[in-house]
Amino acid sequence: MSESVAVVGAGLVGALMALGLGRRGYNVTVFDFRPDPRATDNTSNKNLRSINLAVSDRGIRGLEFVDPEMAKRVLEDLIPMHGRMIHTLDGKQISQPYGLFGEHINSIDRAKLNESLLNEIERFNETAANKIKLNFNTKVTNVTFNSRCAQIEVLDRHSNEKKSFDYDFVVGADGSYSNIRYQMQKYIRMNYSQEYIDKCYLELYIPPGPNGTFSIDPNHLHIWPRKDFMLIALANTDGSFTSTFFGPWKLTESLNKAEIIEPFFKENFPDAVKLIGMDNIVRVFTENPKGALMQVTCSQYNYSDKCILIGDASHSMVPFYGQGMNCGFEDVRILLQLLDECETREKAFDTYSQTRHEDLKAILKLALENYKEMSTKVVSSAYLFRKTLDGILGKLIPSKWIPLYTMVSFRGDIPYAECIRREKRQQTILKAIEFTVVSLAAVAGYWKYSHRK
Amino acid sequence: MSESVAVVGAGLVGALMALGLGRRGYNVTVFDFRPDPRATDNTSNKNLRSINLAVSDRGIRGLEFVDPEMAKRVLEDLIPMHGRMIHTLDGKQISQPYGLFGEHINSIDRAKLNESLLNEIERFNETAANKIKLNFNTKVTNVTFNSRCAQIEVLDRHSNEKKSFDYDFVVGADGSYSNIRYQMQKYIRMNYSQEYIDKCYLELYIPPGPNGTFSIDPNHLHIWPRKDFMLIALANTDGSFTSTFFGPWKLTESLNKAEIIEPFFKENFPDAVKLIGMDNIVRVFTENPKGALMQVTCSQYNYSDKCILIGDASHSMVPFYGQGMNCGFEDVRILLQLLDECETREKAFDTYSQTRHEDLKAILKLALENYKEMSTKVVSSAYLFRKTLDGILGKLIPSKWIPLYTMVSFRGDIPYAECIRREKRQQTILKAIEFTVVSLAAVAGYWKYSHRK
Repeated sequence: MSESVAVVGAGLVGALMALGLGRRGYNVTVFDFRPDPRATDNTSNKNLRSINLAVSDRGIRGLEFVDPEMAKRVLEDLIPMHGRMIHTLDGKQISQPYGLFGEHINSIDRAKLNESLLNEIERFNETAANKIKLNFNTKVTNVTFNSRCAQIEVLDRHSNEKKSFDYDFVVGADGSYSNIRYQMQKYIRMNYSQEYIDKCYLELYIPPGPNGTFSIDPNHLHIWPRKDFMLIALANTDGSFTSTFFGPWKLTESLNKAEIIEPFFKENFPDAVKLIGMDNIVRVFTENPKGALMQVTCSQYNYSDKCILIGDASHSMVPFYGQGMNCGFEDVRILLQLLDECETREKAFDTYSQTRHEDLKAILKLALENYKEMSTKVVSSAYLFRKTLDGILGKLIPSKWIPLYTMVSFRGDIPYAECIRREKRQQTILKAIEFTVVSLAAVAGYWKYSHRK
Repeated sequence: MSESVAVVGAGLVGALMALGLGRRGYNVTVFDFRPDPRATDNTSNKNLRSINLAVSDRGIRGLEFVDPEMAKRVLEDLIPMHGRMIHTLDGKQISQPYGLFGEHINSIDRAKLNESLLNEIERFNETAANKIKLNFNTKVTNVTFNSRCAQIEVLDRHSNEKKSFDYDFVVGADGSYSNIRYQMQKYIRMNYSQEYIDKCYLELYIPPGPNGTFSIDPNHLHIWPRKDFMLIALANTDGSFTSTFFGPWKLTESLNKAEIIEPFFKENFPDAVKLIGMDNIVRVFTENPKGALMQVTCSQYNYSDKCILIGDASHSMVPFYGQGMNCGFEDVRILLQLLDECETREKAFDTYSQTRHEDLKAILKLALENYKEMSTKVVSSAYLFRKTLDGILGKLIPSKWIPLYTMVSFRGDIPYAECIRREKRQQTILKAIEFTVVSLAAVAGYWKYSHRK
């Protein structure tokens, strides 16, 4: 008989994992606390979701690994973003390409992608014998592991009834505040930390232009970098943009009435005000709840062959590298590959825990550091000089030199930790070149000066 | 009407806090998951408890602050420990006094102290109008906070019935794996980390000598320091000792049968084997579960005026400084003082969160570092030389120079963080003196050498 698995969490990563396991013959049951997002009013649902998503190589590889045809379908509505568009204070727009050879990341609607993946589960169920069971409005209240199985106690939020079910194993894909992680911590000595950064976010909406046109270039990720705070915007297919304001809690909470918000936005984002509309800005800042940004790290992701954590449940990161979902889909690919290759599930889970940790640590670090890059460095001349050099070398010797952003976003074949190691070596060389260039310039300057004499 | 409070956890810290609040007129209800320890078989209960306790100044101050008469009663059965007794490999015993002026810490039976505190609650109830309600076998399954109160959902583990109760606030004294902390994390952005160290522990028992005599000196904390692992022993009033083995997980787990355990103990603890008995050692290592050692840190201990964490729930530490309970009792004293002094409970809780953090961070660090002191440094000549110097200065200028151990264990008036700051300054001076002494010795040696010529 095929093995039974409970996937807790029907978000992006949980839904993809359920599909991957279903296609491998497992008897999959999915539980999610929330109502089915396809049944609820889309707009209100969207408002609760954080930040637009950028899907890039690792995410696409994860989807394709599960099912290439499915990947094509769910990635239909992408808007390619070839670079950042920096909005300076005086209203200039400066394009900074992401890749050296035209590579791009892709703006995608989070809610739509989630719905597409759930629809793919229904499509899978049409022909499969091992149908994937989707249970929304269900709260996992307890998990007990024994040598034979994982017993899950589930509360039906409608009937308020509790039932217990036995599974061969559990996949925890239940996000940053994972309950499965909490349950697992009762069984293993898991080093764990959660840390909030002093930034919160608020989502703003840029409506479509006349006849559904885009008011700014849709093929860029727009950034208004203002150091301590910033605004970004990603295009939606209907001509609108989802824009997100990031700022320190104290500052953002102080922007609590029109008399304070209006001058602040006029001074710092004059062109964005025209796109979003001051009334909307004031409404969002005074009415909407602010989102917190948290990092989560664990030292171990599995409990023998009974439980494994993937996605935000095991590595919640800040959104500044656009890698949260991509990394989660990569989790799915790597875990499924290990299940395919290893003799036992325990071996697969143990190997995942042992090998995945350094890569997850690496991307968390990169994501955290990238706030500074997005909000501050993108307008620094030293940064731009080094980035230019980086780009020249990447074009001259592409097999040996790959800029960090390219490795992380376009080269899913290079593990995150390896990206950091390679970047370290490259930065050492860049600094040496910089030093040589500056020295030569100084010598040349002196030569010129002395010859003038 | 007086305010109502739920104290979750009837351990040492929870029981003391309940008493302190009761004496201040609060309507206190205590919940604990476990059965009443006074009703269950003491021996079996004791086996589950970790490591004997050493109560010192901060703990005593906490008890006395709540009620000096009560403190006298519960501290009746102390065994003073004036220093460490180092057991060398060749069977020598070397005494290292803890204080410079005869100060001592005190061995106390954890289970007995807990029972005494619970009995003190009954004694309080005999005369008080606001009786403290003790509820054992109750599991807090959920906590909801609103602007008016804290609502606690409690499961009666006997009847399996769930009931909800409203309180003005909740005190979480429910230990390292605190459920109240977990519930609070849903309401505040709490940075949180838990980290296991690579040491586990097993408790061994040294029976009393003939006619209840002590086989080794009861007025010392005995240590068999063997670097990676060690054995310690604290006296009980009946002539027995509770001994604890600490070692890395891998090593300890490898000691899993008589053929391995016996030569290991004979080689490393020949004199301890005589005290404990090889059969007992083998039984404990093959049958008893190993205890894990975890550190817990939080960035904030309260949620407005609705909830506060004390004791291990907010700062679980490793046991090597003997400060876990002492620090927990200090929590109680400081928190009660703030409640006495501050205008509102929110102000008291906020102040506690803000001011307590650096001290808790300090003692966690000291506790972690002290493993090395106990297991390794105590037999190093460089350490002993510096310790001697430290002691001489402490005796010469006692108002200005206080050895670290004295500050932590005998000077509850000096906050933990201040202990570290003072020790840093003192260590700088010690190093300078050492350098001078060594230089002078070298000069003297050279002078002697050259004169011999």
